[in-house]
Amino acid sequence: MMGLYCDGASVRLRRDLPEVAARDGEAVLRVRAVGVCDTDLQLARGYMGFRGVIGHEFVGVDERGERWVAEINNACRRCPTCLAGRPSHCPTRTVLGIVAHDGAMAERVAVPRENLHAVPDAVSDEEAVFVEPLAAAFQILEQVKVAPGDDVAVLGDGKLGLLSAWVLRTAAAHVTLIGRHAHKLALAGGAIAQRLAGDVSGLARGFDVVVDATGSPSGLAAAIGLCRPRGTVVLKTTVAAEHALSLAPVVIDELTLVGSRCGPFPKAIDALARKVIDVRPLLAARYPLAEAEAAFAYASQKGVAKVVLDVG
Amino acid sequence: MMGLYCDGASVRLRRDLPEVAARDGEAVLRVRAVGVCDTDLQLARGYMGFRGVIGHEFVGVDERGERWVAEINNACRRCPTCLAGRPSHCPTRTVLGIVAHDGAMAERVAVPRENLHAVPDAVSDEEAVFVEPLAAAFQILEQVKVAPGDDVAVLGDGKLGLLSAWVLRTAAAHVTLIGRHAHKLALAGGAIAQRLAGDVSGLARGFDVVVDATGSPSGLAAAIGLCRPRGTVVLKTTVAAEHALSLAPVVIDELTLVGSRCGPFPKAIDALARKVIDVRPLLAARYPLAEAEAAFAYASQKGVAKVVLDVG
Repeated sequence: MMGLYCDGASVRLRRDLPEVAARDGEAVLRVRAVGVCDTDLQLARGYMGFRGVIGHEFVGVDERGERWVAEINNACRRCPTCLAGRPSHCPTRTVLGIVAHDGAMAERVAVPRENLHAVPDAVSDEEAVFVEPLAAAFQILEQVKVAPGDDVAVLGDGKLGLLSAWVLRTAAAHVTLIGRHAHKLALAGGAIAQRLAGDVSGLARGFDVVVDATGSPSGLAAAIGLCRPRGTVVLKTTVAAEHALSLAPVVIDELTLVGSRCGPFPKAIDALARKVIDVRPLLAARYPLAEAEAAFAYASQKGVAKVVLDVG
Repeated sequence: MMGLYCDGASVRLRRDLPEVAARDGEAVLRVRAVGVCDTDLQLARGYMGFRGVIGHEFVGVDERGERWVAEINNACRRCPTCLAGRPSHCPTRTVLGIVAHDGAMAERVAVPRENLHAVPDAVSDEEAVFVEPLAAAFQILEQVKVAPGDDVAVLGDGKLGLLSAWVLRTAAAHVTLIGRHAHKLALAGGAIAQRLAGDVSGLARGFDVVVDATGSPSGLAAAIGLCRPRGTVVLKTTVAAEHALSLAPVVIDELTLVGSRCGPFPKAIDALARKVIDVRPLLAARYPLAEAEAAFAYASQKGVAKVVLDVG
């Protein structure tokens, strides 16, 4: 079958991929659409040495024509971590299109049945590819108690920054998105206050909750500087490289830092179905799967929001 | 009067200090005993450039002979931070014997009346000097929900490490103290499991809550390595210097990092009065105030626990 294959250093379209075979407990879905994520772009440059079909933000259909999205962590469901209710942290998990499990940028994909969530008619395919990153944004509300009167800031005007801002706006009246690009900030819409990162005067130590979605090593220090004493900083992007950092302000101001990763699919699906969050401003372009390499090249350009591959 | 004066670079005993004068809302106490804290040792080496009488862990008596301890943050009680219920984070606060307010290593000290807490008869002077650091250890329980079945680790066998271990043992059945010195670990007593830092095999990612009380730049990375996914790491000591650190594991394992500083005096006093915590194993030596310089020299030696100055 056709799919986008990562060889650990680059990606290329292949038409000779073996047909997917479902393992125990897995369903085979025909892929309809799949989003290009920043993690995909990193994998395509050799991050984590992944070999296989990439892609994890997808919507597919089963043999009866029903549409599904799938959580990406494939857990053993038997180890102490799984039995303690934390399957997304299973130490032997595979991750769809990221770790030791073929992903969804192909005609078909196999995923554990217990990871599936049905997509209601009110959610289009192009919206459904946002379920996975939107769920990651909703994870913030699972971990941090955000009150309606809280002042919230989100650092970073990339896709995860905007999704986080929209999610937080469902819980708090005042959300400020801070980023480096006026045109990306503007996508957030009128309900979100917007500030260029170079102009945060008057905001220091003013926020109850600050989310670092910059993906940059300097993001955390900036987030700490914006957070009030005893406030909460959410680390929403992985900066794998070591970098110089002083955590003395975290102790002196008694801040709480919360690492946040994958999140609850049902809340994301529900928010899309009820039109509480409109992700469509983030859709930048659609390509057929056969042009996946061109789609990656476009998605890699600075300032491009979500690129979606139409598969079938 | 006599007192130990810090000139921003060193400490020396002076007998020519001006008599303390109470400002509005302050009480003058005759000091009975005062502990030497690691912060004092750092101030005596120039940390923060403090000039004045140092010392903040003390017990004193008023003109009626009643004994008092005092919280160390002197807040304005009028600014937004104070009015929001966080006076210990008041941006214009002074700090007893640390920031712009003469401390307690002198015959007399002036402190805000609203910072005073009465010392019950069941608490001796030498126990009362532990109220301030013990309250800082109790702050952990104010910030982190510790369940009886939680596995808890404390890194660092200094005074704050032992106090933290004892406090956490009041909330959880299994507390492990990890440090570099067998003789200091042994002070924790039989109710606390003890491990040398070089031998933590089998403990990786095993603890629900990990407290970093090492005061060392390497402490946080070690604490992160011991914490289970979605567990909590408490930062109990300030490492002011920047150091290289990767917080990627915090995101991937969705850890919560909590900075923790000063704490609730009433809980510390109550624990001492009811003999729930016995701090006396930490008492290393007592010196008269007139020998304060010698006391500092002794307290600066490696492996010495609490040194107390007897004043009057």
